[in-house]
Amino acid sequence: MQTIFHVNTNGPKLYEFTDDVVRFANDAGVETGLLTLFVRHTSCSLLISENADPDVKLDMNNFFARLVPDADDASMRWLRHTCEGPDDMPAHIKAALTPVSISIPIANSRLVLGTWQGVYLFEHRTRSHQRQVVAHISA
Amino acid sequence: MQTIFHVNTNGPKLYEFTDDVVRFANDAGVETGLLTLFVRHTSCSLLISENADPDVKLDMNNFFARLVPDADDASMRWLRHTCEGPDDMPAHIKAALTPVSISIPIANSRLVLGTWQGVYLFEHRTRSHQRQVVAHISA
Amino acid sequence: MQTIFHVNTNGPKLYEFTDDVVRFANDAGVETGLLTLFVRHTSCSLLISENADPDVKLDMNNFFARLVPDADDASMRWLRHTCEGPDDMPAHIKAALTPVSISIPIANSRLVLGTWQGVYLFEHRTRSHQRQVVAHISA
Repeated sequence: MQTIFHVNTNGPKLYEFTDDVVRFANDAGVETGLLTLFVRHTSCSLLISENADPDVKLDMNNFFARLVPDADDASMRWLRHTCEGPDDMPAHIKAALTPVSISIPIANSRLVLGTWQGVYLFEHRTRSHQRQVVAHISA
Repeated sequence: MQTIFHVNTNGPKLYEFTDDVVRFANDAGVETGLLTLFVRHTSCSLLISENADPDVKLDMNNFFARLVPDADDASMRWLRHTCEGPDDMPAHIKAALTPVSISIPIANSRLVLGTWQGVYLFEHRTRSHQRQVVAHISA
Repeated sequence: MQTIFHVNTNGPKLYEFTDDVVRFANDAGVETGLLTLFVRHTSCSLLISENADPDVKLDMNNFFARLVPDADDASMRWLRHTCEGPDDMPAHIKAALTPVSISIPIANSRLVLGTWQGVYLFEHRTRSHQRQVVAHISA
């Protein structure tokens, strides 16, 4: 059983789509199984992180912005792949440091997500995108 | 087929539970399949790493402590989410940099783990926790 | 359905094997399923990244070399696990920061890889290796 989630983004940030994922899994009629998410891009990624305090999302994004500054930052002058803008190669790097796929078991017809776990699309590019996340459930 | 591994932790460190995982997979009676591990938390993570020299675990933990210092370090003054202690937001960041789920094939009724691969719960919080890792096997 | 891909490496770099993965998945005769890749080592890893501009591979490798310098760099004097050479512990760390397993759905008998997504073995050791990646397909 598969579906595609479309996530609209406008700049580097965490975009939560936990509700969509939970609804898809709970409606699947699978008692014991495995849900896998896969993002079809190389400049955004997936993340499971706390979804209680919105400051967590800000801090998370700021950490990655500091760890991998844009190409116009003096510390990143060594980058070669800069033709698509100063945020492009850093986006690929951030996408390498975070998951492209995540698998979450289903038990008793429910995802086993922990209490504080939210599912996010982590956008690393500045301009707007519509991102695709393929979801697959195996029984 | 599913189970939950409970891992007791007391501080930021790598806690090996390879034997539990191997036993569960080998006893499953599945000749060809896939084992998936999923950690139900946002301030610890999973890791596969060398389990021959215990210094690897120390170096690994020290690297992450240096890459993401606690909030009371001068370099981290920009963090907002600090209400739950100086180690809380850094724990979420370290958990983002390492896997929340890992999948290992089963071949000839055995996990295909490499010779030096151990399976770890990577705790990022200072105080004690009991962590849950859900294991799912699909045939 | 399983196979093992053997990837020969000679130094820290990204080695693409997308074609092998696509061929295995497309020849599997599975209309809807999930392909999982698992690398059986602790000093190399897997990566999905852009495969259009070869500079992306160079920049990616250079970023990790800067983030985790070899043990003979002054900034890494604190490393303990150095007996197997200055590139060994940094290789374990780089392998912790990037995936050991990746899962990609199959839809309409084809991997749902995005247009720019290539599949790579990310070698972190200096000397030559033959690396094993186990591929598993579940229907």
